[in-house]
Amino acid sequence: MPKALITTVPFGEKSKKALDLLSQNNIDYLINPLNKKLTENELAEMVTDFDVIIAGTEPITKKVMDSASNLKMISRVGIGLDSVNLLEAEQQGITVSYTPDAPAPAVAELTIGLMLTLLRSVHISNIEMHDGKWHRIFGRRLSETTIGIIGVGRIGNGVLKHLQGFAPTKILLNDTKQNLNLDEKNNIKWVDKETIYKQADIVTLHVPLTVQTKNMVKKAQLLSMKEDAIIINTARGGIINELDLYDVMREGHLSGAAIDVFDLEPYNGKLKEIQRCILTAHMGSMSVDCRTRMEIEAIEEAVRFLKNEPLERVVPEEEYTVQRESL
Amino acid sequence: MPKALITTVPFGEKSKKALDLLSQNNIDYLINPLNKKLTENELAEMVTDFDVIIAGTEPITKKVMDSASNLKMISRVGIGLDSVNLLEAEQQGITVSYTPDAPAPAVAELTIGLMLTLLRSVHISNIEMHDGKWHRIFGRRLSETTIGIIGVGRIGNGVLKHLQGFAPTKILLNDTKQNLNLDEKNNIKWVDKETIYKQADIVTLHVPLTVQTKNMVKKAQLLSMKEDAIIINTARGGIINELDLYDVMREGHLSGAAIDVFDLEPYNGKLKEIQRCILTAHMGSMSVDCRTRMEIEAIEEAVRFLKNEPLERVVPEEEYTVQRESL
Repeated sequence: MPKALITTVPFGEKSKKALDLLSQNNIDYLINPLNKKLTENELAEMVTDFDVIIAGTEPITKKVMDSASNLKMISRVGIGLDSVNLLEAEQQGITVSYTPDAPAPAVAELTIGLMLTLLRSVHISNIEMHDGKWHRIFGRRLSETTIGIIGVGRIGNGVLKHLQGFAPTKILLNDTKQNLNLDEKNNIKWVDKETIYKQADIVTLHVPLTVQTKNMVKKAQLLSMKEDAIIINTARGGIINELDLYDVMREGHLSGAAIDVFDLEPYNGKLKEIQRCILTAHMGSMSVDCRTRMEIEAIEEAVRFLKNEPLERVVPEEEYTVQRESL
Repeated sequence: MPKALITTVPFGEKSKKALDLLSQNNIDYLINPLNKKLTENELAEMVTDFDVIIAGTEPITKKVMDSASNLKMISRVGIGLDSVNLLEAEQQGITVSYTPDAPAPAVAELTIGLMLTLLRSVHISNIEMHDGKWHRIFGRRLSETTIGIIGVGRIGNGVLKHLQGFAPTKILLNDTKQNLNLDEKNNIKWVDKETIYKQADIVTLHVPLTVQTKNMVKKAQLLSMKEDAIIINTARGGIINELDLYDVMREGHLSGAAIDVFDLEPYNGKLKEIQRCILTAHMGSMSVDCRTRMEIEAIEEAVRFLKNEPLERVVPEEEYTVQRESL
């Protein structure tokens, strides 16, 4: 009986469908008993005799693969592949698949919610009011702002679509591929990242974590932003340098930030001291519908693999190229 | 030189245009020196020799008018008229105007932000994270929900338009006038209020405060809502009974609420104890653009009045009828 290790938690909490699929196909499984994001060592100890990992964002390194002699497949519940050493997996003949489409709608919607919350200081007023302090805070509407989207893939595109209903002054886009044909009339254009930092009232990041994007937003970039600008990271921890963000915000720069993803998760760092920085616990994909879809898609792919059926969501060659070029 | 008392605060903080208009037209003015929402007595003492009130939501009663022997005009900065005794104003020959269109876009946008924040528990996670607690909370997307809008005037209509970009499962509308022709196909329909309470995952209120809507949402209505439903009031304090809301939420009913308006403002009541109830300081119209527009429109109307020019935003007869029928 093949064995699957489910490392990402929570799993199967809102819908049993994914776990039922495993049982129906006679696949034994274990859900991460530590109930938190695993470290490399914890995973290496835990994974020894499993055939498949149903993986979160924990590091799946050479060390992990070396200690998993039966491992034949990694099925990522989600889109980012920064946590998986794809080249080592290739070397060891381990198949890797993912669920790139499922999380996007939930992440995009959360991002819009964070923009509106930050623009109107709902997070600040809420804390003040619960402390008995009445203070009417001025805000801005999306239609008064220029918005910069860095990374216009599935999620960035979703953000762009939602935003159009709120008619922002201008939307500035940046990506390595300019994959949208823009109508000249509608105030949306492709620019370089520096232009976004300088001109945008809201900067939102939707790029994967790679060698190129790690620490992409450091002190220099943050300081080049408008003093009352807002930055949002619902992509991956480490794309914004957390300590630099802390330093510039402590000095009064930026009117707000929202950080959902962190270098080290669970996060317990210094940004906690900055009240105008909204912190959430990597909840971008955590809507019941998207999470359920991600779980089912990841399990379906593992079942296909173990039954020798054709796979549907194998990680494409370009993701390997990204990691190869990072060496 | 005619004299205007500006009671609503802040005023002229983000743009001087409205105050400049007064100076240019040789109108003397005083901005409410108590810098808070005035009580009836405070206003009665302050208003004695003013010709015009540029009014917020403080009570403009018979007593206030009786103590203001020069008062000829009330220019409301905003849309609600629950605070003004229109029938007494009519009796005393005092003209009343308002700015019904200006606040709507800001209130509608805040409402959408509150929905997204509540659905994804951003307010809860933000407080937990600032306390060093990592807890990934499940949420829902708007597309998984049925939304009930009670009151489909300028603001309710704005909410409806924004929502359509998020494709909710169903949108249920209620108003005394069914003023929209709905396309059968698109999942939006007119229903009675009871149906909204029972079926909606999110109930949002956009009705004026009148004798009919005061305490419209009491314990019975709240308890008829789904256990995990959400209620939002960005309209007027008193439409939801605050103590009933506190009682039902304390007992665990409703997954969240957002209250921006209160019976008594500044608010300092028991809802402070309910963490999953977002509280904001009557900030619905507090976007720089809408606030500036409201201030300018209210002052322009006062200037027209004092120069004997035709008025543009006189309160219509139907608002007097509402108050007459409330007697």
